[in-house]
Amino acid sequence: MAELTGGHLVARTLRQAGVRHVFTLCGGHILPIYDGCLSENVAVVDVRHEQAAAHAGDAYARLTRGIGVALVVPGPGVTDAVTGVANAYAARSPLLLIGGAAPLGLRGLGALQETEQVALLRPITKGAWSVAETRQIPEVLTTAIRTALSGRPGPVFVEIPVDLLLAAVEDRLAPIPTGYVHRPRGAADPDGLALLETLLVDAERPVVMAGGGVYWDDAAKSLALFAERAGAPVFMNGAGRGVLGTDHPNAFFHTRGWALGHADVVLVLGTPLDFRLGYGRPPTFAEDARVAMIDVDPVELGRNRPLELGISGDIDIILRQLVDALPKGLPDRVAPWLAELRRREGEARGKLDELAATDARPISHYRWAREIAGAVTRDTIVVGDGGDVVNCVAKFVPVDRRGSGSIPARSAASASVRRSPSRRSCSARTSACCWCPATAPSGSTAWSWRRPCGSGCRSRASSATTAAGARSAAHKCRSSARRGRWPPRCRRPATT
Amino acid sequence: MAELTGGHLVARTLRQAGVRHVFTLCGGHILPIYDGCLSENVAVVDVRHEQAAAHAGDAYARLTRGIGVALVVPGPGVTDAVTGVANAYAARSPLLLIGGAAPLGLRGLGALQETEQVALLRPITKGAWSVAETRQIPEVLTTAIRTALSGRPGPVFVEIPVDLLLAAVEDRLAPIPTGYVHRPRGAADPDGLALLETLLVDAERPVVMAGGGVYWDDAAKSLALFAERAGAPVFMNGAGRGVLGTDHPNAFFHTRGWALGHADVVLVLGTPLDFRLGYGRPPTFAEDARVAMIDVDPVELGRNRPLELGISGDIDIILRQLVDALPKGLPDRVAPWLAELRRREGEARGKLDELAATDARPISHYRWAREIAGAVTRDTIVVGDGGDVVNCVAKFVPVDRRGSGSIPARSAASASVRRSPSRRSCSARTSACCWCPATAPSGSTAWSWRRPCGSGCRSRASSATTAAGARSAAHKCRSSARRGRWPPRCRRPATT
Amino acid sequence: MAELTGGHLVARTLRQAGVRHVFTLCGGHILPIYDGCLSENVAVVDVRHEQAAAHAGDAYARLTRGIGVALVVPGPGVTDAVTGVANAYAARSPLLLIGGAAPLGLRGLGALQETEQVALLRPITKGAWSVAETRQIPEVLTTAIRTALSGRPGPVFVEIPVDLLLAAVEDRLAPIPTGYVHRPRGAADPDGLALLETLLVDAERPVVMAGGGVYWDDAAKSLALFAERAGAPVFMNGAGRGVLGTDHPNAFFHTRGWALGHADVVLVLGTPLDFRLGYGRPPTFAEDARVAMIDVDPVELGRNRPLELGISGDIDIILRQLVDALPKGLPDRVAPWLAELRRREGEARGKLDELAATDARPISHYRWAREIAGAVTRDTIVVGDGGDVVNCVAKFVPVDRRGSGSIPARSAASASVRRSPSRRSCSARTSACCWCPATAPSGSTAWSWRRPCGSGCRSRASSATTAAGARSAAHKCRSSARRGRWPPRCRRPATT
Amino acid sequence: MAELTGGHLVARTLRQAGVRHVFTLCGGHILPIYDGCLSENVAVVDVRHEQAAAHAGDAYARLTRGIGVALVVPGPGVTDAVTGVANAYAARSPLLLIGGAAPLGLRGLGALQETEQVALLRPITKGAWSVAETRQIPEVLTTAIRTALSGRPGPVFVEIPVDLLLAAVEDRLAPIPTGYVHRPRGAADPDGLALLETLLVDAERPVVMAGGGVYWDDAAKSLALFAERAGAPVFMNGAGRGVLGTDHPNAFFHTRGWALGHADVVLVLGTPLDFRLGYGRPPTFAEDARVAMIDVDPVELGRNRPLELGISGDIDIILRQLVDALPKGLPDRVAPWLAELRRREGEARGKLDELAATDARPISHYRWAREIAGAVTRDTIVVGDGGDVVNCVAKFVPVDRRGSGSIPARSAASASVRRSPSRRSCSARTSACCWCPATAPSGSTAWSWRRPCGSGCRSRASSATTAAGARSAAHKCRSSARRGRWPPRCRRPATT
Repeated sequence: MAELTGGHLVARTLRQAGVRHVFTLCGGHILPIYDGCLSENVAVVDVRHEQAAAHAGDAYARLTRGIGVALVVPGPGVTDAVTGVANAYAARSPLLLIGGAAPLGLRGLGALQETEQVALLRPITKGAWSVAETRQIPEVLTTAIRTALSGRPGPVFVEIPVDLLLAAVEDRLAPIPTGYVHRPRGAADPDGLALLETLLVDAERPVVMAGGGVYWDDAAKSLALFAERAGAPVFMNGAGRGVLGTDHPNAFFHTRGWALGHADVVLVLGTPLDFRLGYGRPPTFAEDARVAMIDVDPVELGRNRPLELGISGDIDIILRQLVDALPKGLPDRVAPWLAELRRREGEARGKLDELAATDARPISHYRWAREIAGAVTRDTIVVGDGGDVVNCVAKFVPVDRRGSGSIPARSAASASVRRSPSRRSCSARTSACCWCPATAPSGSTAWSWRRPCGSGCRSRASSATTAAGARSAAHKCRSSARRGRWPPRCRRPATT
Repeated sequence: MAELTGGHLVARTLRQAGVRHVFTLCGGHILPIYDGCLSENVAVVDVRHEQAAAHAGDAYARLTRGIGVALVVPGPGVTDAVTGVANAYAARSPLLLIGGAAPLGLRGLGALQETEQVALLRPITKGAWSVAETRQIPEVLTTAIRTALSGRPGPVFVEIPVDLLLAAVEDRLAPIPTGYVHRPRGAADPDGLALLETLLVDAERPVVMAGGGVYWDDAAKSLALFAERAGAPVFMNGAGRGVLGTDHPNAFFHTRGWALGHADVVLVLGTPLDFRLGYGRPPTFAEDARVAMIDVDPVELGRNRPLELGISGDIDIILRQLVDALPKGLPDRVAPWLAELRRREGEARGKLDELAATDARPISHYRWAREIAGAVTRDTIVVGDGGDVVNCVAKFVPVDRRGSGSIPARSAASASVRRSPSRRSCSARTSACCWCPATAPSGSTAWSWRRPCGSGCRSRASSATTAAGARSAAHKCRSSARRGRWPPRCRRPATT
Repeated sequence: MAELTGGHLVARTLRQAGVRHVFTLCGGHILPIYDGCLSENVAVVDVRHEQAAAHAGDAYARLTRGIGVALVVPGPGVTDAVTGVANAYAARSPLLLIGGAAPLGLRGLGALQETEQVALLRPITKGAWSVAETRQIPEVLTTAIRTALSGRPGPVFVEIPVDLLLAAVEDRLAPIPTGYVHRPRGAADPDGLALLETLLVDAERPVVMAGGGVYWDDAAKSLALFAERAGAPVFMNGAGRGVLGTDHPNAFFHTRGWALGHADVVLVLGTPLDFRLGYGRPPTFAEDARVAMIDVDPVELGRNRPLELGISGDIDIILRQLVDALPKGLPDRVAPWLAELRRREGEARGKLDELAATDARPISHYRWAREIAGAVTRDTIVVGDGGDVVNCVAKFVPVDRRGSGSIPARSAASASVRRSPSRRSCSARTSACCWCPATAPSGSTAWSWRRPCGSGCRSRASSATTAAGARSAAHKCRSSARRGRWPPRCRRPATT
Repeated sequence: MAELTGGHLVARTLRQAGVRHVFTLCGGHILPIYDGCLSENVAVVDVRHEQAAAHAGDAYARLTRGIGVALVVPGPGVTDAVTGVANAYAARSPLLLIGGAAPLGLRGLGALQETEQVALLRPITKGAWSVAETRQIPEVLTTAIRTALSGRPGPVFVEIPVDLLLAAVEDRLAPIPTGYVHRPRGAADPDGLALLETLLVDAERPVVMAGGGVYWDDAAKSLALFAERAGAPVFMNGAGRGVLGTDHPNAFFHTRGWALGHADVVLVLGTPLDFRLGYGRPPTFAEDARVAMIDVDPVELGRNRPLELGISGDIDIILRQLVDALPKGLPDRVAPWLAELRRREGEARGKLDELAATDARPISHYRWAREIAGAVTRDTIVVGDGGDVVNCVAKFVPVDRRGSGSIPARSAASASVRRSPSRRSCSARTSACCWCPATAPSGSTAWSWRRPCGSGCRSRASSATTAAGARSAAHKCRSSARRGRWPPRCRRPATT
């Protein structure tokens, strides 16, 4: 039996949930949590703007396919984190934002930084809670974590008044739940499986669209098996980028528009039919294409376009079921379709290379992108921002991370709320940066932690950048990053 | 090509979704929808308080396992429906509430009955929308319907300004979506299935708790097969009541507390571990019981109590998988456990019968319940209200509806928001009523539609009711109901 | 020093705030408050549907120009009260709704009737709070009361978990605030006053529109003085009806449309320029009329129409300032305008009388209204519902209550959320009822408290009603009411 | 007659409302507004993070005592502005945030940057609207502006879908309202005035606490007259700092705690009794002090502490009424009280000067503050951030701006949501910066507009800063600022 403060209960609950790092901008209302983190060996990463903390927590969640945590003071701390939370909401990322709060004992009196936080966060989270008693901290936090991780993942918010963090309770009165998260890997039912098989067997011009769900369900390997078995071309978007390597024979990149417009069967895996896919409608999709979709969220099934079949379940499991069910010989049947796509892919690639060969000054987006690409290795984490530029860079920088466990963070910029982890605290609008190691949320943060880092910018402010300059910046970034270590050791940040 | 009003688009979209009846209290803002219903052959059932309309739409949804629709004027019409919507939310019932709205062209000026409806309905629905253009009516309504029916079902709200209902558009500009609802019947993955099998094979004192999910997944038959295969006793609650008939040898009713308190394995099917089950905690559940749970909503898995296993999927499919997987011979193994339960069940039954034998005046709850039970046949729909009384009546009135398609409406009163379809518009607090046919939402409505109906009340106001009086009222109700016809033919209600 | 339960603290705080009656439908979650009410001599009026409780609390607030209180159980109790709260919100009535809540100690576990109440009530209240500690009960309640009464009045909501109501604290730790409501009676500044005077002195065809603000500011007497001084015709709407008696020479009723359409100066007192006044725009208001407005809520000043002058302050004080400032002789100047209005008023009255003379069967609205009017005395409280019928009845039933302290409850039906206190719990749609004494919220409630009461209905269900029948019903109602006593003595209601 | 786009309507409405500058981070969804601004001669100031735009709009509102406007793209643009809006909400600043929105015609389909913005902004604004038709743009914007400026000022939000901005309508169909804002300057009623007078006449140890309301009501001059007439010491906080110059004999700075703790009468002008004033309770306020308060928001009257008197009205008008009402001779009566305060003020000043004399390295806060103070002139705008440091600097930097029209922006940091305009986009945590001219929202913005600017930081990163370094930085900042011009000429920003 021991007495623990509320802050210690927070840290112990997080640690037990497997959390090793929390991201924060330190402040007085949440000090007891830092102390708890020291005791529980949870590293506290201090950043310079709470937006960076939220983005970093999001990135941590994506990298680990688990909960990511940002920890902020009430009032401006919580409001500063809003963009990061909204981004995680759009990207289905299980971020837990823990906000301090004015003391419960002063609620309503106009205490320092007292703000209506739960109502504010509700529209951009799967759930938002205010803790009412110290002993309930583990229960509320684990409820939030389960909510974030279950079904369609997404961010959650918990606010904890500072007096509850300071108060101590006996640990037996505030037990930390166990066995509270179950992420069942749903399979397809026999009828659904049979219909899916029929669709694929009958297809002459199949297309597979692989989105973030393939990444979240860790289905890269079964996708490769399936693509080979079905002979189908695979396009990737969002966090799905990289689930097939650039050298996989069924992976295609530059002919998505033409392929979707001419396909007779489209299998959509873990990506919504939103603006990025023309809402699944003509002219992006052929009018009479037969479309099937697998997604963790059943509400996405039938959204914007009629489906032949919608299945809600685990993409890895279902692809394995499919591989077992499909007859041999399908690749031969669709070989002409693949050949035509390959021819067009080559043409498109050639045109891009031409565009990137220019020496025009200021540097063209294409040339700049090619220089970035030249500095990127398999270990590089590329973080970009700014829709147009990111779209351009994405055509050149290979994303090839089978087994690497890295995160397609760049895809954040394509999400409907498009902010990458690093963006907003850089002093200039960063068009693309190369960071390593992974979760460095911002330049100033990295610098404050004595992490080497660098960035290659192409903003208005540096519009005179030449190809040589871009190349130099990118390489400098990469080499300095090699000298860095990450993550920092756990220590309590100084307060300001 | 034809021109359709917005009101007609509403009716056509509903009809295409399989809706045959809508429940309403008629008013000017939604008149164009009534006209559309006449054209599209959707029956309009006019009631006397919008709360009754919402409860009736909820009941319709439960009976049909599909969408139920209530249609109300803006302002007080929508606010009057709030309790019905909240009830549907607690009970996971796919009710679509369509609210009129002040004209879009006058928004913000303080128009008649202008109210902030979407924000009001949001906390008690799965989604709430305001239609912005006439041509979007089919899209918004089908989005709402998909949301209501997908995953964990629940109510939704759509408001449509009256000017958009009056405006006409060419039908080709407002196509009604098809193939927009997919209710995939998820199966268990192999690992989950194996673990579940192991739990059951090892169990010495298993208990199955069957809730509303068993009804929604239409799993009554596979539950019976499973119970027989596993030899497990089955208790039912909520909308799960009646999925095993009273004469099924594995069905138990009066020993739930003892059984859960002594079980070593509990399989929870489609019911949350909320207050009705003591939060799955001691003393209701044995401290060391191993608990597995199947629920459509993954967020319920691990809530309030550690689970050995949580599966999100279709209960019917998964029970069938289990029946195939379980070895023979399990019933012999657990026979002593069942024998003990049967002995205790008999004792409990005997005590209840004693309590109900009294001739005390005013009539005791138990006696009164027994008289009601005597008047109820398999075809009777029992609608009750008032927590204590309903709990008592439930012990006497058999719910036995294999294949009958009827609705365990009584269970509404056990839900955390406990209001039954009929309650609030009766002039006295109705403790229990016998209605037939099914969805009659209130006495005055039935009367207005010239439906025979009746009720047996036990309220303070009738506390002198004797056993004879209760019996007489209940029988009168049943016999008059036999003469009724339902549903009424479609006609446009008079406006007031 | 004494120990008080949370429930007792509620009652004591209410009593200290001058509350003598609370309206409720009794239930377990709020029992400690009833006990407190017994100790503190606050009468508990038990009704049959929480909607009636909320409407009654609203009526109490209007009658007393102070706080009115409804007290309901969590979940369905709170949702049932929503229409009453929304009505109070539209009518600017300071209703305090106190809702029970599931125990704080079980928050989030799915406790009985646990519902997200604060978010639900927020869109229709000036503020909504959840109490976090027993000792904060007086502070939160008084904050709610101050919010309800300050500036533009309106409803508020406070939820109190049942464990906090049961817990006892020393009274010195939970002091009840004093001096916490200040309703400053703001005067006009010199510039504003001068401009207002100029407008009136220059006017040839002035019109005064007196709304509910005149009632709330208790400005009937100063309005009469002002009207006489300025010689201006006065029309009344909403809760302003009756502030000038029907026999006052400046009071007009049947020519509002013509007058506003021809006025050169309109002074709007305490009523918004919403749908009831054609948004202050042509054709209701003359295009070039110069409009000035006095309202407690500055946001209403300039809404929908340009104003020459907008003043936010106390109507009584400002009218007194005006009376002092205006020169003598104005009535002579505008005499022709008044004469013309009087001629038209007589014509309109004649036409109405003709319409009401018919013996047609079923009875015409006009005749029916005249019969109601014949049964109404100065002491009668008229409660109506159903927009069209109420509009008709309002033309015949005189509202003449100088000094009577009665409430123009009928006007509720003209408000944008139009529900009168009695409506929804009557078993038939009540077109108009005559109640006495004042706040009887419904027939069944009155009956349950052994109050004589009656009603005259004109619904579809009684469409054969004749003039004789209407007259008989109305007189019966009045005479039975005379025998009643009100309010009931304080006693604890039985629980169900 | 002319055709105008929705974007042009926005700009024309703003221009007509007196807005000369809007602050933005440019993006595609709001381009039509920029075009409109070019036509209507509204300067568009492009910044590097939407948070800066919101803070700048807030600062503009404070400087002009009128509406300030920030203009942002949907999704991340709006979420980035949240902190700025929340800050304006806490500081009662009339900021209008205009957010772009996904096309109305694609609402609900998952369009680029589609986000639920209105619900998000509601908890931190006085009102939030979504425009439904192009022709309603002027009406909605003017409604928002009236709401922001009326009564207690505060921020508002309007979102406008991009298709409505692009669509053109005839200007006569979308008239821009006039005369829609009235900010009545309420006077005290005779009773209130008399009571106030009595309090002051009887006082032996009076204290006046002057907050932001004195600034907003432009009451600096009448406050000086009143203080001299009453002989009362005046303390200032929040935006009230500087309303009395540092050399005014009744202005006090360093003895507030002692004075409030010993006063017998406190007059609180335009500042809430929140955490900054110890909630108006002991030990900050004497237990038996008689407190009167004047505030624009009547809900503040009686909050946290009983008041003898609460008045809601214009502070300038009421102080003038008071000056006329008060008898002569009061200063003599309270002379001993002032003498004692002056003695203590001198002592406190001396201690501070001692603290600031240190040469310790790293530089002490006090010394650093003194160096900043030495570089500040009457024209300097001081922008600070970081609670502790700001509190320290505030003791040294004189705020003396009678008639200067400058803004006490530093006080933002004392507000409960404490972020100053410049903070968050600086690459290091800025403890204090000296900006000139006024509204420069951030270093990178200033640089992008070729504005000279500078800053003096005392962050961890520069903790070795010496006194000489601080002095040098501050002077460099000031001198470079002198060369700048502001505001920039209107031009359309480049898009990215």
